Amino acid sequence: MTPLTIDAERFAADLAALNAIGWDGDGGLNRTALSDAHADARRWFLARANAAGLPTRVDSAGNHSALVPAADPAARTLLLGSHLDSVPHGGRFDGALGVLCALEVVRRVHEAGLELALALEAIDFTDEEGEYLGTLGSEALTGVLTSERLAAPRGGREAMLGAFQRAGLTEAELVHARRDPHTVAGFLELHIEQGPALERSGTQIGVVTGIRGNASFTVTLTGAARHAGTTPMDARRDAGVGAAAIILGVRELVMRDFPGCVANVGDVTLQPGAFNVVPARARLALECRSLDDDELTVLADAITTVARDQAARHDLEIAIEDVGRWTPVPTDARVRAAISAAAQEHGLSHVEMPSGAGHDAQVLAEIAPVGMVFVPSVGGISHHRDEFTSLQDCVNGANVLLGAAIALARTL
Amino acid sequence: MTPLTIDAERFAADLAALNAIGWDGDGGLNRTALSDAHADARRWFLARANAAGLPTRVDSAGNHSALVPAADPAARTLLLGSHLDSVPHGGRFDGALGVLCALEVVRRVHEAGLELALALEAIDFTDEEGEYLGTLGSEALTGVLTSERLAAPRGGREAMLGAFQRAGLTEAELVHARRDPHTVAGFLELHIEQGPALERSGTQIGVVTGIRGNASFTVTLTGAARHAGTTPMDARRDAGVGAAAIILGVRELVMRDFPGCVANVGDVTLQPGAFNVVPARARLALECRSLDDDELTVLADAITTVARDQAARHDLEIAIEDVGRWTPVPTDARVRAAISAAAQEHGLSHVEMPSGAGHDAQVLAEIAPVGMVFVPSVGGISHHRDEFTSLQDCVNGANVLLGAAIALARTL
Repeated sequence: MTPLTIDAERFAADLAALNAIGWDGDGGLNRTALSDAHADARRWFLARANAAGLPTRVDSAGNHSALVPAADPAARTLLLGSHLDSVPHGGRFDGALGVLCALEVVRRVHEAGLELALALEAIDFTDEEGEYLGTLGSEALTGVLTSERLAAPRGGREAMLGAFQRAGLTEAELVHARRDPHTVAGFLELHIEQGPALERSGTQIGVVTGIRGNASFTVTLTGAARHAGTTPMDARRDAGVGAAAIILGVRELVMRDFPGCVANVGDVTLQPGAFNVVPARARLALECRSLDDDELTVLADAITTVARDQAARHDLEIAIEDVGRWTPVPTDARVRAAISAAAQEHGLSHVEMPSGAGHDAQVLAEIAPVGMVFVPSVGGISHHRDEFTSLQDCVNGANVLLGAAIALARTL
Repeated sequence: MTPLTIDAERFAADLAALNAIGWDGDGGLNRTALSDAHADARRWFLARANAAGLPTRVDSAGNHSALVPAADPAARTLLLGSHLDSVPHGGRFDGALGVLCALEVVRRVHEAGLELALALEAIDFTDEEGEYLGTLGSEALTGVLTSERLAAPRGGREAMLGAFQRAGLTEAELVHARRDPHTVAGFLELHIEQGPALERSGTQIGVVTGIRGNASFTVTLTGAARHAGTTPMDARRDAGVGAAAIILGVRELVMRDFPGCVANVGDVTLQPGAFNVVPARARLALECRSLDDDELTVLADAITTVARDQAARHDLEIAIEDVGRWTPVPTDARVRAAISAAAQEHGLSHVEMPSGAGHDAQVLAEIAPVGMVFVPSVGGISHHRDEFTSLQDCVNGANVLLGAAIALARTL
């Protein structure tokens, strides 16, 4: 039997229209959460759903949805979606493609008159990217949003409350966005890979096995500031040399002993920071990621051991401060199987792979089985104006999302 | 014959008095060029010279001097000195000790009624440390101060002109500080080592062989900013890893192939500089020093080759910008011999060694034979409140300066 497919022409036109909202050419996509451009994109989303005859809703966390009710009004809901907000000067595919694919799926199911055991809901979550808080909408929906998080948003509290006001949201009413977990049958998110693996291997669909957990640290090395012209090389306690040894040592460790993991030193600051002074102090922003919680613990220990060993070797004091830790989130085996089967049905090559980045799906995993469909991301570029996924890859992903959603609506 | 020695008790009292001018306890010595504290120190210097019956002079570059004329009014002058200004939050010995030792030498020669073939002049040079320009006084005296340097002083032009006004100096009259080179027989500078070599080897006197030349560069590496959670380790173009490889590679190169030289990466800046983004760009502040001009060229080439090789190895673009170059300045063999002989006469251990830092002596070398006496610097610390040289080491240095000056006044 030929599987149901999306309306590729309509989908392409919608993708072009959505891509233009907040697009600043050389400046990339400026559609940060609760900005005017973001509000325009969300209005466009509701208008496209209504034009297709779908009911829509906006909850008290600002999450926007297009619905296909089930015949049984008591039926649970299969959520499909992602986010329409971007980082500043971001790209057009991160998040937005997942919302558009979800919209096309619910439209197609509605048009085809399929009778499913679950309601379908295409959802656009508020502030996934963290202009104010990060995964705000999905945390409100699942009920995991804490008052501690709201008290100290990364974008600043005044800015957040101002944005809430402009968007017609209030902090007090955020909790009312919480869904009864028993009403949520599952969540499916399509997203660009944001890495080069699919493109490098020429694979059309990624079936996400889980979302990597992350441990991050600030490492401070202290040596001695000395005159760089007068202090012999072997009499130095050079914090910059210690930082360099840690950067290379961590990279070597991960590549040799932790092939499925990644680590990054994303920032280094040296003090006093002059040509002619041996650096007395170095601060490193260090993180590592693994798909497995136990492995993440072992990896973080091994990395901090490398840092301590290199500090000792270069006669430096070291302080390691924990900055944060996210637990790895595995996806649901039934959802993965449905995604693989849908790819198979459409004759698309597919591979199981981890997600290195965080997504709304990891939040939804708190209350329901989740899965993610990845599509190739040219050059692995994301959060940048050059972020690009070919129309064919977008259409492929939408078809897989459609097939998986229909299958899961019958089995979850 | 017992050599003439300084008046150690008077010297110690003067050292304590001078050390207190501009001393801010935990804040170190704040006696930046042309500040109120600096003016106080210079007035104190003139008053101490006058109290000893010595004529004094202040030239149009603000250089302060105490004089011992020779019997022959046409005799050339042997200059002895250093600088009374400090860096902000600096130490009490860098510069000031050299001026005080020179003052004690000319006082002692005057008291002893020695008849020398050269006039002696203890001199305090203006702004050696570069609060405004760096080696301003010695450059004016030798005539190498250029209008280009005055047009763009490191401390800013307005600040410099304001300081000139407060100190009664004018830019137009600086040139009148220039001495006829034929009137200058030589220059002797005593200074703390600013490095740990004398202390480490337990040597009392350093006979400076020359002042290391310096080549400095800004190295910019460009890779690609990628998501640190999604980009495999082997698919990264990580500018931070390139910077680390250069830091360690340069260090290894210098320690292995250039044992008499030093190099330093004093600053590194990574962009975009976030925990979860692979650094796209790194900027390194890199310098190297050698005592020999040809060796400095070879060293600078070898270092930039290491940088280019590491950039290529990590698939990074590289740009290397020359920031500055000072030519190495050898000291005069006769002056070195006089210093060694004076140390010998006083039973002091001594060793030939390079000066890694720049000094007024390298400017004076443009017009006359120069030499430098180094005394130990505890822990190699300088430009810091903890800068310290024991009274005995200060007295030893002053005695060597005295002996060398007397000998050179007969032979130069």
